Amino acid sequence: MTLMKNMTWYEFNERKDKDIVILPVGSVEQHGPHLPLYTDTIISEGFSSLLANRVNGIVMPSINYGYKSQPASGGGPLFPGTIDLNGSTLIAIVKDILEELIRDGVKKIVLINSHFENQAFLLEAIDLVSRTMPEGTKILMMSWWDLITQETIDKVFDEVEFPGWALEHAAITETSLVLKFAPDTVHMDRLIDEKIEEVPTYQVYPIPKDLVPKSGLLSIGRTSSKEKGDLIAKEALDGMVKVIKKEFT
Amino acid sequence: MTLMKNMTWYEFNERKDKDIVILPVGSVEQHGPHLPLYTDTIISEGFSSLLANRVNGIVMPSINYGYKSQPASGGGPLFPGTIDLNGSTLIAIVKDILEELIRDGVKKIVLINSHFENQAFLLEAIDLVSRTMPEGTKILMMSWWDLITQETIDKVFDEVEFPGWALEHAAITETSLVLKFAPDTVHMDRLIDEKIEEVPTYQVYPIPKDLVPKSGLLSIGRTSSKEKGDLIAKEALDGMVKVIKKEFT
Amino acid sequence: MTLMKNMTWYEFNERKDKDIVILPVGSVEQHGPHLPLYTDTIISEGFSSLLANRVNGIVMPSINYGYKSQPASGGGPLFPGTIDLNGSTLIAIVKDILEELIRDGVKKIVLINSHFENQAFLLEAIDLVSRTMPEGTKILMMSWWDLITQETIDKVFDEVEFPGWALEHAAITETSLVLKFAPDTVHMDRLIDEKIEEVPTYQVYPIPKDLVPKSGLLSIGRTSSKEKGDLIAKEALDGMVKVIKKEFT
Amino acid sequence: MTLMKNMTWYEFNERKDKDIVILPVGSVEQHGPHLPLYTDTIISEGFSSLLANRVNGIVMPSINYGYKSQPASGGGPLFPGTIDLNGSTLIAIVKDILEELIRDGVKKIVLINSHFENQAFLLEAIDLVSRTMPEGTKILMMSWWDLITQETIDKVFDEVEFPGWALEHAAITETSLVLKFAPDTVHMDRLIDEKIEEVPTYQVYPIPKDLVPKSGLLSIGRTSSKEKGDLIAKEALDGMVKVIKKEFT
Amino acid sequence: MTLMKNMTWYEFNERKDKDIVILPVGSVEQHGPHLPLYTDTIISEGFSSLLANRVNGIVMPSINYGYKSQPASGGGPLFPGTIDLNGSTLIAIVKDILEELIRDGVKKIVLINSHFENQAFLLEAIDLVSRTMPEGTKILMMSWWDLITQETIDKVFDEVEFPGWALEHAAITETSLVLKFAPDTVHMDRLIDEKIEEVPTYQVYPIPKDLVPKSGLLSIGRTSSKEKGDLIAKEALDGMVKVIKKEFT
Amino acid sequence: MTLMKNMTWYEFNERKDKDIVILPVGSVEQHGPHLPLYTDTIISEGFSSLLANRVNGIVMPSINYGYKSQPASGGGPLFPGTIDLNGSTLIAIVKDILEELIRDGVKKIVLINSHFENQAFLLEAIDLVSRTMPEGTKILMMSWWDLITQETIDKVFDEVEFPGWALEHAAITETSLVLKFAPDTVHMDRLIDEKIEEVPTYQVYPIPKDLVPKSGLLSIGRTSSKEKGDLIAKEALDGMVKVIKKEFT
Repeated sequence: MTLMKNMTWYEFNERKDKDIVILPVGSVEQHGPHLPLYTDTIISEGFSSLLANRVNGIVMPSINYGYKSQPASGGGPLFPGTIDLNGSTLIAIVKDILEELIRDGVKKIVLINSHFENQAFLLEAIDLVSRTMPEGTKILMMSWWDLITQETIDKVFDEVEFPGWALEHAAITETSLVLKFAPDTVHMDRLIDEKIEEVPTYQVYPIPKDLVPKSGLLSIGRTSSKEKGDLIAKEALDGMVKVIKKEFT
Repeated sequence: MTLMKNMTWYEFNERKDKDIVILPVGSVEQHGPHLPLYTDTIISEGFSSLLANRVNGIVMPSINYGYKSQPASGGGPLFPGTIDLNGSTLIAIVKDILEELIRDGVKKIVLINSHFENQAFLLEAIDLVSRTMPEGTKILMMSWWDLITQETIDKVFDEVEFPGWALEHAAITETSLVLKFAPDTVHMDRLIDEKIEEVPTYQVYPIPKDLVPKSGLLSIGRTSSKEKGDLIAKEALDGMVKVIKKEFT
Repeated sequence: MTLMKNMTWYEFNERKDKDIVILPVGSVEQHGPHLPLYTDTIISEGFSSLLANRVNGIVMPSINYGYKSQPASGGGPLFPGTIDLNGSTLIAIVKDILEELIRDGVKKIVLINSHFENQAFLLEAIDLVSRTMPEGTKILMMSWWDLITQETIDKVFDEVEFPGWALEHAAITETSLVLKFAPDTVHMDRLIDEKIEEVPTYQVYPIPKDLVPKSGLLSIGRTSSKEKGDLIAKEALDGMVKVIKKEFT
Repeated sequence: MTLMKNMTWYEFNERKDKDIVILPVGSVEQHGPHLPLYTDTIISEGFSSLLANRVNGIVMPSINYGYKSQPASGGGPLFPGTIDLNGSTLIAIVKDILEELIRDGVKKIVLINSHFENQAFLLEAIDLVSRTMPEGTKILMMSWWDLITQETIDKVFDEVEFPGWALEHAAITETSLVLKFAPDTVHMDRLIDEKIEEVPTYQVYPIPKDLVPKSGLLSIGRTSSKEKGDLIAKEALDGMVKVIKKEFT
Repeated sequence: MTLMKNMTWYEFNERKDKDIVILPVGSVEQHGPHLPLYTDTIISEGFSSLLANRVNGIVMPSINYGYKSQPASGGGPLFPGTIDLNGSTLIAIVKDILEELIRDGVKKIVLINSHFENQAFLLEAIDLVSRTMPEGTKILMMSWWDLITQETIDKVFDEVEFPGWALEHAAITETSLVLKFAPDTVHMDRLIDEKIEEVPTYQVYPIPKDLVPKSGLLSIGRTSSKEKGDLIAKEALDGMVKVIKKEFT
Repeated sequence: MTLMKNMTWYEFNERKDKDIVILPVGSVEQHGPHLPLYTDTIISEGFSSLLANRVNGIVMPSINYGYKSQPASGGGPLFPGTIDLNGSTLIAIVKDILEELIRDGVKKIVLINSHFENQAFLLEAIDLVSRTMPEGTKILMMSWWDLITQETIDKVFDEVEFPGWALEHAAITETSLVLKFAPDTVHMDRLIDEKIEEVPTYQVYPIPKDLVPKSGLLSIGRTSSKEKGDLIAKEALDGMVKVIKKEFT
């Protein structure tokens, strides 16, 4: 049993002070014509479940809405279906949940994030909580892409050039991961070969409508496959397990 | 297709300004020895899906953490696994999501709530949003129990006396609804015949540990059944459809 | 001497760590054509004074503005003269006052509330304060209607049917209590026989103008009398005294 | 009829868009051994009532808790019975009330303040509200001491030297005004001849316990009298009326 | 070495727990036709540097934006170039900086303020910080004008009458101080003989455009000189040193 | 004249609606044994002044305190002298300043940032402001490193390997830029050859003390020189000018 949502409180209670509690963090954000709005949450939940299996962890219900999409990493706020939280809101949610876990006696907490824009605000929340948390409590935050080696990048980007992680939005790695975690939600036939033509070297507001392609695609998604998803997932997961072993033992 | 999370933004975009968007609101809260922590969210999601089918609606990803459990309606904050958000946090989440929907051009929004304690804070968020929302936009909030008639109550409480809605926590109606919506998560064999002995007529802080039974049960759950779940769901759903027809046409 | 406002700080100082401090919470809200805007505050102050006499308590100056009036329990925000605080504001006021009392060394605090809509926000404030308050401090919250028995309800609603507490707005119980506590402010000759025709089973925003009668009356007020006020006050007061004896000794 | 609290909403409704609405702002603060904790509120309410009579105004229920007492103008926070609101809380209350009045259609609003420390926070609230208020709305804030001439100061301080307004706490002017507005709450026999010996020329935290006399008196209160109260009240009131005539016609 | 901004962290680290840390607080605000927008910050930084030399202190980078200019002490918000922070913002900045110093182990902190309107909000921030700061930490706040004696006032106002400190905006004392601290930024040739004609005895919003002279001058600046700047600076500085000796030894 | 701080309001007023207003954003943060705490602010101010000269801009007083230093981009919060603002505070400052500029009629605003960790919070502030700003107003944010080409990176990192921008803290590029902008504050003789040994692939709280070298250096600073500073500055500046020409004409 890894999903907290299906546990009774009796079951959670028995495990809370020794097992690792994993909080997936995602978003509701445009991911082009072929991927679902829940792409980031699907990936965070996918990794969290695999991880829980490996480290005997408990997966919490996701934080399923995330921080504001940015043009050069998510397409930006102008796409219908992208639901953006204010920074203060995301900080508050994460802070409240972490404080509740700590009050319950949980000592080992891991956030698995898949939405690039969430990072600064998740860390702000963790920082605020960490100032008063009892000794012996530890909170980790991991984003899967930070655990991918150059070797794997080379394999995954066999045809298409690697555009950098920020721009890898709705492109090869995310498409491959959703093909692995929730294949029924992917429409490979709708994928088109479009990408951001000129990567902006600055930010401008109001955000221009033509900064990113109309499709919302920032990089080429061609050559995505479940196999690449397996490859990425395996390496990121092994990395996560290694981190957890190091930090929690 | 009713689940927004599985939609691409293209799909959401086509329907956003004419279809009803439904936001399920739940909680992560103890529900006795036999029901999962996600009981409220399961019920809100269950109703939302049924409703979307009936009114051609779109179901958003849930607000899956809720306001603080209270002793006399949810057992209170002392049960591990109950994850309580502060009032200001819940208000902020709901406010942000509603404002994003409205910015996207959504005109018909329905919140389906199943967590008693959420009510005041959901309404506060809606009120704040409504002050600046464009004419023609309408937001409804419904809690399933408000749509149940005395006649149905009489049928459901055939053996056990109806304790009032606040106390119907982890008891016959919720158990029956989870038996309907997510039967695999119910452990009827663990259900025990326990209830709050003396319903408090006031609130006291710090919350005493012995205010509610150790099991977290507030009322008798015996006689729960999927059939009763069907009965309640049918009536509440019919009521919801009727409300929506009235308000949105 | 029961009113803190008339005390010098010397007088308050002598009693602060042993006596009960009572904080009346009211509202400024429409109460139909015959009752004053201060109805809730009058009732809270009335009960607080009686209670202070019985338990040797000190009555603080009231929190005299309350949370937003709701259509089905107060007529809603559209009536001129109804002055609604935001939820965060009411939480802040109550939190600050409680923390100041606690810093002063007060150990026994009782909130007497008469405005239905205040409840969730008062409890949120108390909860936040209670997390850091020193051991030995206790905060109670009481709403007079929670202390009324079915027997008394039957006596008070001898002619008119009891509509439930939420709807008992500007109706028999409140009118009777103001006839007791501040008879000069009641205009029985202006009372009309009007009530909400269809009690809403859901909330809708923007709040429709015709949801409640133009008078602001939600239930029938006929048969109100000072004698009924005495009856209700006596029972609620006895209940309050009993609660205080139980909790503070 | 000048007191809003005793009005029905019908009565308020008829006058709201043409009459001046007056909001008294006070505090709950130590005022030495001889004056009540409510001194500031008594004075604000006293002036507001007199003013309402002169300009056909409506007096709202007071904001009866104020900003934090400062050592050199109120004795500071260390006196039991002094109940200090945080700055953000006072701003929120005033902002909410003003916005409600404006939503109700009120055009002429006057705040009458008697607590020195409130000033900056009242103005902050008014400033925030004023940014979005409809044209034609005007908000005034008056503190009675700003309307007193040197001539009157000379008369009032016939024996004792005038220490400046900040230090005139619980001293001649306030004592005289309470002797006028609420004589029963004054204990002239308890007044002692004590004052702050060295007026601080800077602020230091933590606030030292010996910065002000133990009694909480900052200046000499001897020679206070109801007659002086009349004198001060007359001049301040005349000033207020003059201001209102100038600004609202 | 007195300027923290030029120190390495090694240098700051060595001195942090024994030396006095000085935080200058200023504003960006109109100061008439002849003084720079940074007048207040120039003066705060000037005093801070002199003070640091005398007491072996460390001068932090300034808080260089301040609270909202008021008509009768700074000309008000209508002058372009006056950049006003909200009260809550200024409180947050000061609170964060003080808490960081305290976390670093700093024990002796002094704020030097030169913007009249900042005072209440600086004190609010210090008060909030002081509630949880470790024993042995002390925070002072000084405004230079509080340290000027009547004797010096008489000397400085030899020709022009002293209008009181609030009105001494962009007038003799500030002009003289900037002539001392940053003479190149003063344009004596542009100074004109203008002042506020009728000092308001109340506040009104929206703030009228003709409340203060078009130049932004509130009082006569004629007779300003570097010599007067020296005189004022010497006395204020001696006062500051005396205060620091008293409080920190 | 490019510095707003030295302008009178008359001077600012004449230029405010046609000229570009530049807001430098920095930090007070450890930069190893050889660079000053003000490094980021020095660089932002340096670029802002050069830029103002090129585009006839006005440089505002800096936002001189920044968001929390992170271990892998600034050494983290444990170094004395690093003064970290909370995210909400930085958002508030930037929001207030931008809104004031806009109220003054400024149409062209540019933020020049040099502190990696500021980015997300600056964008949040700009986003919030942009929602209500009048048409025709435009806000840009630029960080100098985003404007550096691979070619220049190759020249600057002639001996030492380029570690990526996040890790380039107190290393070659920053040292070279301070050698250019404020050479007197650099102590090249104290620079040591130290760097972070294992770049973390995740975040952990509480932040371990040994995550970064004791010196605070994250990357090798050897080979820094004023010439490299000139090279970087020239390219970044040219880039900035190009961006501004594109966006503001």
